[in-house]
Amino acid sequence: MIAATITGGEVHPAEHPDPQPAADEVLVRVHAAGLNGADIAQAAGRYPAPPGWPQDIPGMEIAGEVAELGARATRFALGDRVMAIVGGGGQAELAVVHERQLMVVPETLDWPAAGGFPEVFTTAHDALFTQCALGAGERLLVHSGAGGVGTAAVQLGVAAGARVYATVRNEALRDGVAAFGAHVVAPEAFAQHGPFDVILELVGAPNLAEDLLALTVGGRIVVIGIGGGAHAELDLRGLMAKRASIRASTLRGRPLEEKALTARRLERHVLPLLASGVVSVPVAATFRLEQVDAAYARFVAGAKLGKIVVVMG
Amino acid sequence: MIAATITGGEVHPAEHPDPQPAADEVLVRVHAAGLNGADIAQAAGRYPAPPGWPQDIPGMEIAGEVAELGARATRFALGDRVMAIVGGGGQAELAVVHERQLMVVPETLDWPAAGGFPEVFTTAHDALFTQCALGAGERLLVHSGAGGVGTAAVQLGVAAGARVYATVRNEALRDGVAAFGAHVVAPEAFAQHGPFDVILELVGAPNLAEDLLALTVGGRIVVIGIGGGAHAELDLRGLMAKRASIRASTLRGRPLEEKALTARRLERHVLPLLASGVVSVPVAATFRLEQVDAAYARFVAGAKLGKIVVVMG
Repeated sequence: MIAATITGGEVHPAEHPDPQPAADEVLVRVHAAGLNGADIAQAAGRYPAPPGWPQDIPGMEIAGEVAELGARATRFALGDRVMAIVGGGGQAELAVVHERQLMVVPETLDWPAAGGFPEVFTTAHDALFTQCALGAGERLLVHSGAGGVGTAAVQLGVAAGARVYATVRNEALRDGVAAFGAHVVAPEAFAQHGPFDVILELVGAPNLAEDLLALTVGGRIVVIGIGGGAHAELDLRGLMAKRASIRASTLRGRPLEEKALTARRLERHVLPLLASGVVSVPVAATFRLEQVDAAYARFVAGAKLGKIVVVMG
Repeated sequence: MIAATITGGEVHPAEHPDPQPAADEVLVRVHAAGLNGADIAQAAGRYPAPPGWPQDIPGMEIAGEVAELGARATRFALGDRVMAIVGGGGQAELAVVHERQLMVVPETLDWPAAGGFPEVFTTAHDALFTQCALGAGERLLVHSGAGGVGTAAVQLGVAAGARVYATVRNEALRDGVAAFGAHVVAPEAFAQHGPFDVILELVGAPNLAEDLLALTVGGRIVVIGIGGGAHAELDLRGLMAKRASIRASTLRGRPLEEKALTARRLERHVLPLLASGVVSVPVAATFRLEQVDAAYARFVAGAKLGKIVVVMG
C-alpha cells in the first residue's frame, strides 16, 4: 500500500507492506484521513506514536470501508462505512484498528467530512462533557475557535445549550466561527467577555493566568493544547478563591478501553447530531495522498476554518 | 458576653454585646471552639471575615447548647448539643448560626472534640470525596498529616478504604499520625512513595511540581492550603501526560446553601463514623477563653497533633 511517510522531518507518500488485522481488529480501506497538530509534532520528531502503532506513518483518524475482518471481529461486515481514531498510521491506503474503536459513518456524511470527524469531535466531546460536565446555560470559552477542535467544540457547546464564546486570531475566519453560533472575541480581549464556566484551552501556558481571572466561581479550565508553551505560572490563591479546577488531557496515550469508551459516547451523543446536521465537519481543504506533503504545508500555514483532510482511492 | 477579640494583630478576651438570632438562626451557648489557620491569618489582617460575620471576633467552628431559637427556627430545641462551621465569631460565649448549618453532637463526643470537629472534617471530607471522589483502594497522600485537617483527612481516607500516606515534618508526631493508619513519610522524600491517585495539598506552591511528578495517570491534586506560598509553576505538558487535574478550594467564602450541603454530607457520612469511634478528633491542647492569647501562641508554635481548642463556661 501507499502511505504518508515521515522521512527527515518531512512527509511524503511511500510504499509499505499491507497491514494485517489481528483477531479483534478490522482492516479498513481508508478513503479519508484528517490531519491534526499531533501529526505535525510527530513528523518533527517531538511526539512519537504509542507502542504498537506505526512510527513512520502519521494519521490519527480514518474513515473508510471494512476490507477484512480479524478472526474474532463481529461488529461489522465487509464494505461497512466506518470511522475511528487510531494511534497512528491513518494516512495510508489501509489501516488496522480494534473493532471496539470503530463507529458507523452516518449516510449523510461524505468521506472527507468523515475522515476529519473522529479526532477533533472525540477530543472536544471528552474535554467539554466527560471532563468538565458542561451544562445548558453555562458560558463556554473556546480558544482557537477556528481550528478543527475549536469548530467541533463550538458546535457541541451550542448544541448542548451553552452560551459559547470563541477566540479567533485570524479576522478572515471570524464570520465562519460565528456562523456556528459562537460569540467571536479577539484573543487579546477575551477576559472582558467573562466570567466563563468552562474554558477550553488550546494555546497553553500564555493564556493560563488570564483564563483563571476570566473564570467564574466553580469554573473549569481544560488544557488540551500547548502549542503556545507548556510552562505556566499558576496563582494558587486565585484558584482557591474561585474554587476552580484545571484539567489537562491527551487522547492518544489512553489505553484501548478508554478510547473505545469515547467511541461509545460519540455514537450515543454526537452521531445523532451529525446525522441530523446539527453539527458538521468543516473541511477547509482536501489533498490526495500523492500530495500529502502539500497537505502538511497547508496545515502549518494556518488560516483555515476546520480540517485539512487527505483523501485516497 | 466575653469573646476573643482581635486588636492590633493580637487576640485577647473582651466584652461584646450578645448576638441576636435572626429568624432562621439559632443562638448557641458555645462550650468549645477550635482554632484554625484562617484565624491566625485573620488576626494578622490577611483574611477578613465574609460580609455579615464579626470582623473582630475570630473562630470558624463551634460546639455548644442551643440557647435561643429564631422565630422560624424549627430543627432544634433549647438545650440540644450542636456544632457547626461559622463564618466567624465562634470563639465567644455566644454565637449565632443558621439552623441549616448545625449538626447534632454525638453523645460520645466531649465538648473539646466537638468544638474541634466541624472545620477540619468538613474541609477534609469536601476535598477528598466531593471534589476528588477518592475511592477504596486508591492511594492518597496527605501533606501536613499531623495538623487538624491532616489528621481528619488521614482518618477519613483510611475509613474509606484508601491506602493513605502522610508527610509529617515533626519527627515527634510521626507515631501519632501512623496510629491513625497512615504510612508516614518524610516531606522531602514523598514522591518516592507514589504514584498517588489523590494528593491533598496543604503547603502550597513549593510542593506542586513534585506533586505532579508523584501523581498517577488520572490523578487529582486538591489545594486547600498555601501557607508555603501561592505562586506556583505548572508544567502543562506533564499535566496533559498524566491526564490529571488540580483543584483548589476554600470553605469560608461559600454561600449558605453550599455550606449547609457540607453539613448534610457530614451528618450522613461522617457522624456515624465519629459516633462509633472509627474516626476521632485529636485535641492537642485546650485553653480557657480567658487565656485565648495563649491558645493562639500555642497554635503558631506548631508541633501539635490535631487541634487547639478554646473552651468556655
